[in-house]
Amino acid sequence: MRMSQILVVGTVAFDEIITPFGETGKILGGSASYISMSAAKLTSDIGIVSVIGHDFPKEYMQKFIERNIDVSGIEQLENEKTFYWKGKYHNDLNKRDTLVTEVNALAHFNPKVPKDFENADFLMLGNLHPAVQQSVIEQMQTRPKMIALDTMNFWMDTAWDELMSVIKMIDILIINEEEARQLTKEYSLVTAAHKIQEMGPKFVIIKKGEHGALLFHEKKIFFAPALPLEEVFDPTGAGDTFAGGFIGSLAKSGVISFDSMKKAVICGSNLASFTVEKFGTERLESLENDEIKSRLQEFISLTQFDIEIV
Amino acid sequence: MRMSQILVVGTVAFDEIITPFGETGKILGGSASYISMSAAKLTSDIGIVSVIGHDFPKEYMQKFIERNIDVSGIEQLENEKTFYWKGKYHNDLNKRDTLVTEVNALAHFNPKVPKDFENADFLMLGNLHPAVQQSVIEQMQTRPKMIALDTMNFWMDTAWDELMSVIKMIDILIINEEEARQLTKEYSLVTAAHKIQEMGPKFVIIKKGEHGALLFHEKKIFFAPALPLEEVFDPTGAGDTFAGGFIGSLAKSGVISFDSMKKAVICGSNLASFTVEKFGTERLESLENDEIKSRLQEFISLTQFDIEIV
Repeated sequence: MRMSQILVVGTVAFDEIITPFGETGKILGGSASYISMSAAKLTSDIGIVSVIGHDFPKEYMQKFIERNIDVSGIEQLENEKTFYWKGKYHNDLNKRDTLVTEVNALAHFNPKVPKDFENADFLMLGNLHPAVQQSVIEQMQTRPKMIALDTMNFWMDTAWDELMSVIKMIDILIINEEEARQLTKEYSLVTAAHKIQEMGPKFVIIKKGEHGALLFHEKKIFFAPALPLEEVFDPTGAGDTFAGGFIGSLAKSGVISFDSMKKAVICGSNLASFTVEKFGTERLESLENDEIKSRLQEFISLTQFDIEIV
Repeated sequence: MRMSQILVVGTVAFDEIITPFGETGKILGGSASYISMSAAKLTSDIGIVSVIGHDFPKEYMQKFIERNIDVSGIEQLENEKTFYWKGKYHNDLNKRDTLVTEVNALAHFNPKVPKDFENADFLMLGNLHPAVQQSVIEQMQTRPKMIALDTMNFWMDTAWDELMSVIKMIDILIINEEEARQLTKEYSLVTAAHKIQEMGPKFVIIKKGEHGALLFHEKKIFFAPALPLEEVFDPTGAGDTFAGGFIGSLAKSGVISFDSMKKAVICGSNLASFTVEKFGTERLESLENDEIKSRLQEFISLTQFDIEIV
């Protein structure tokens, strides 16, 4: 069986993060960085489509290359700087303020899918303008087996029609609970997920942060908790790490079914539980296979029970 | 094997509930009502210790008697009215305001454990003044196999020393997440649960409302989600229903182990998912065995997966 290929579209960026535990200075960030590095823990043959500026360090590019992540789709603009985000988390790490957003190179992002990835099996569209997401779908030579998309409130407010257009073309929408509510005007996540299915995607994942994630398909629901941790150090990238682990697990299995997605949701939660333990991609970078397996066992203990229905 | 006996101590009261979906007038409420009616879905030989006033209707007493719940420990005070609580839920049903609290008969509650229950196997202490809870423990002729206790922020603010005293005597503390944080001054629920174990109880259950419940024992953690529902109608009594289902399941199995508690937590979540579908105890009263079994199957589908760790 040919290894399934994953194309990841999203940002490769600088983040600067302040939490109650410290601050980072400029570090590697961006949705495509987390998604690809997370997926690479589970499978290979992964490529990124993104845009960076002249100031993006070679060492950061090297982090992808070392992990066999194809960077030929990352365009470097000589006259622009790299997208930069600075944010500060409250003592309650569920809340953060954005201090700086410099769009820079991202304003000129005109994604070009490399020839080698025009027939990718899995397409993961990180949070970007929905028209940009759609242009990537339209560049694919064969329709991917699975197109997953992340988005955010900002595009619901500013690009509703484009968002509705791209949502029709995808298989899985991966969003958080507030976004699901805003998208559907429904409070109940069950009702919201059903409404989203009517918009196009046959599968919906609603992320609830520290409260886990729900997977919906037709009338079926599966729930993966977040691993209860003694300490969350930096939540940045947890959602993208989840998405990367999800798509990586699916690509590894090569099977698209509700059962394979259950496993994929657990694998995504598992990887996300590591990302929050250190700043940025640090924990993901140092993560060993044995650690992943051992924590998977914790997920099994956390959730599996044995009840005989009599 | 003798059927395990459960003694439930708590309030039997009038509730008046306003939600965005309607209002109830005075209906049957109180922690002991929900706990005992929930436990009675799973096991029998259950008794209540509580206090009511002269205005408590015979029909309400009949609801317990019909379910084989022993009411000989419910004292009726001729010169007092029954405890009465009126509350109004916001559109977000996670928030509510108390409109009226009339303590009435409860101010004179001097619990007397009936002879027949002095050797009960399971003692479930619903939310009450910790000194009242302790007086019940001290009336037991043999130490129950399992003492579970619920409490609330109010007692942490007003009766800290008494609370610490009774907490030393119990096996399981069942509280919600804000209460766990207030009790331990810890934000992380994992750290909070470990601190609570140092206070006495070997088992800790932290209820997170619509986000499920966590069971802790030594270093072990188990998580039971709440069933995702299309509509929550009235959350009143969900926590007590959970506690009743938990203790009922344990009593039915007769086994006290982490595995039997996992099942018990799922059974509690299962019953609580019904209570919130209608006002007060209405749904619990009409609940059929087949409905419980069928929803248990939903819990299994919701949470169980099959991952091979290789």
